[in-house]
Amino acid sequence: MAKSMLITGGARSGKSTFAEAQVLALGQPAVYIATAEAHDAEMAQRIALHQSRRGPEWRTLNAPYDLCAALRESDGDAPRLVDCLTIWLSNLMLAERDWASEAEALAETVAAQAAPVVLVTNEVGAGIVPENALARAYRDAAGLLNQRMAAVCDELWLVVSGYPLKVKPQ
Amino acid sequence: MAKSMLITGGARSGKSTFAEAQVLALGQPAVYIATAEAHDAEMAQRIALHQSRRGPEWRTLNAPYDLCAALRESDGDAPRLVDCLTIWLSNLMLAERDWASEAEALAETVAAQAAPVVLVTNEVGAGIVPENALARAYRDAAGLLNQRMAAVCDELWLVVSGYPLKVKPQ
Amino acid sequence: MAKSMLITGGARSGKSTFAEAQVLALGQPAVYIATAEAHDAEMAQRIALHQSRRGPEWRTLNAPYDLCAALRESDGDAPRLVDCLTIWLSNLMLAERDWASEAEALAETVAAQAAPVVLVTNEVGAGIVPENALARAYRDAAGLLNQRMAAVCDELWLVVSGYPLKVKPQ
Repeated sequence: MAKSMLITGGARSGKSTFAEAQVLALGQPAVYIATAEAHDAEMAQRIALHQSRRGPEWRTLNAPYDLCAALRESDGDAPRLVDCLTIWLSNLMLAERDWASEAEALAETVAAQAAPVVLVTNEVGAGIVPENALARAYRDAAGLLNQRMAAVCDELWLVVSGYPLKVKPQ
Repeated sequence: MAKSMLITGGARSGKSTFAEAQVLALGQPAVYIATAEAHDAEMAQRIALHQSRRGPEWRTLNAPYDLCAALRESDGDAPRLVDCLTIWLSNLMLAERDWASEAEALAETVAAQAAPVVLVTNEVGAGIVPENALARAYRDAAGLLNQRMAAVCDELWLVVSGYPLKVKPQ
Repeated sequence: MAKSMLITGGARSGKSTFAEAQVLALGQPAVYIATAEAHDAEMAQRIALHQSRRGPEWRTLNAPYDLCAALRESDGDAPRLVDCLTIWLSNLMLAERDWASEAEALAETVAAQAAPVVLVTNEVGAGIVPENALARAYRDAAGLLNQRMAAVCDELWLVVSGYPLKVKPQ
């Protein structure tokens, strides 16, 4: 099995920058698998900021829903960066797709990859319990998704203010 | 003094699963001290999910308020799991009991136990400051409770995506 | 360059207590640079609580906006504690000042200090994405500020339930 990593942390903790460096260290050119869709101006700006930071050593695939297909199709020599799992999860939940089954399929797909894959996710469960039921469901789902992916990845890192803490293996 | 552990982490970070494994490694049968009450369907479902994961090696005590009494009464040979402190805290605050005094009593009770005790709590203070004053008070209380309990426990662990980081001792 | 530390963690995680001990270990008397203003009774109470914990070995400066000036003016032999960066950030944003430029100036000022400086900040990005746009902007800004300050500090610590995890250097 090729190397796999799950990189987690809070918003703007430097996860993507750390993840990009890890992927480029595994091989170049690399494949960037984007899960975000530009639904509004704020999200478009955020996507543009992420893209402007990446250089010509990256090829971009868009996979707001079918992440397993994107991983299978890109499974050559090049390392892949998936950024990020929590946006993919919210896409699935907003489309009322069965996120739990898709998370299980993703775990199995990641475990079967021949080329390396680095997955970025978010910590969303360390604040006050949200009053909104959908937000609570999302927060629970994100935690379960992160646990499932961490279990199949070789490495798990928590990024704090731009610096990584290795959580798995220890 | 018997071994004591405080296990913290975000929602659905795998704290309870890790805590249960720690308790069963300390001895079987074990005692599960539940603090949650099923006020609504969502909470009932969450309690049922937790219970279904535990097997016959567990005896369950309910202690939504009088956690010190539950610890004293169960202080034999069997290790105890308290799941969780943040729900106990919200029970106390909703009942307008003096949570600070009860937290102090709990710390003293834990420090005096003859049999092992593992306490699960939650990180609730790493999001945006809540607009709601009660939520801010709860968030502050949970942080202070966690500090107090960590001070009397032999070990403190932070669980991230199902994997533990040891915070105390180092 | 004198020793510099960034200390982060959730609300009521024990960051200030840990930071104060670090500063006093670097030299006494020490300078406390406060960024909070007492806008309401709740904040006044929080400030009073923090002050009551500090003894006569501290001299206090108030710097709700001009933190760089306070650092330059206090740059003698005594170690300085800045508590905290996230309140300074919210002061700047509420006053509609250019926080990004001021964060960059602060990073350069910290890097140029002759006497030690310990900076306390907060983790605010590990909860659910806030519905409020200003809260999202603040959360992003805090993450970026923390990354920038961590990059110029010698040490970065994450405090969990009163106990520190060293994140940088490793």
